[in-house]
Amino acid sequence: MSADNQQERPDVKWIVGFVDGEGCFHVALNRQAKMTARYQVLPEFRVVQQERDIGVLEEIRSTFGFGKVTRNHGERYERRVRGIESLQKLIEFFEANPLRTKKKEDFEIFRKIIGMMVEKKHLEKEGLEEIADLASKMNRRVRRHLESSETICRNKETCKI
Amino acid sequence: MSADNQQERPDVKWIVGFVDGEGCFHVALNRQAKMTARYQVLPEFRVVQQERDIGVLEEIRSTFGFGKVTRNHGERYERRVRGIESLQKLIEFFEANPLRTKKKEDFEIFRKIIGMMVEKKHLEKEGLEEIADLASKMNRRVRRHLESSETICRNKETCKI
Repeated sequence: MSADNQQERPDVKWIVGFVDGEGCFHVALNRQAKMTARYQVLPEFRVVQQERDIGVLEEIRSTFGFGKVTRNHGERYERRVRGIESLQKLIEFFEANPLRTKKKEDFEIFRKIIGMMVEKKHLEKEGLEEIADLASKMNRRVRRHLESSETICRNKETCKI
Repeated sequence: MSADNQQERPDVKWIVGFVDGEGCFHVALNRQAKMTARYQVLPEFRVVQQERDIGVLEEIRSTFGFGKVTRNHGERYERRVRGIESLQKLIEFFEANPLRTKKKEDFEIFRKIIGMMVEKKHLEKEGLEEIADLASKMNRRVRRHLESSETICRNKETCKI
């Protein structure tokens, strides 16, 4: 790789700054009548950009080595990380390279939820309730009670969906 | 300053990433009947955040050493740089530390407009028309003709106002 190419690669600190601006830690709770706990917990990290910046999303994906870039709707694309193993790697990344804005607080809650999921606590009613409470702190607009399918993180200040 | 405090200071590359996500290069053209060229050109760089992240804006301001943090409306605060001399320093910063998203294209246009203003071209009709054309390329929604007071950069994808 030439010096020029090296310079063009996204820098870890640049990524942290970009995620402080554009990243979203997101936990959806979807009603699932067939499941024991009745709700499926779907944690996700995403960065949404216009089509013109799909290259940047690809570079970030390549730097992490996991996740994927998908078309969202219209000209919007997102770099998305789902799956507990990848999310654990993502958490390690942001533990080593801390966020600087208040998005760090969302990250801390997200990290706690992932930890609970690793321990399978989301499969029991009590754990699920705790996850719902935690997730509600990530966003002011979300309902606190699990009455219907709902998505945590509707705040357009922090998350483009 | 302790090692801890040093670690907390915003890093240049973090700032570039954050501005790639949240920064806005903005040129307003305001109708001014009393002026020879009839329009006042008002270039500005801004980063808007919620009140909870005012600390980050102050840190960025402190790192640059110029600009100011002001209340925008509601809970929104902005770190704003106006004035040609400060904007020239800002341009030097982003020349040395390039943006990575397509926001770099807005920056290049912004830099060209500032260069023209340094040469006083905005005070003559021809220069003003060229600035208006350049500024219109920074945002798709803006009208190309100088018919009324208008603000370039209405694109909410890149600029929170």
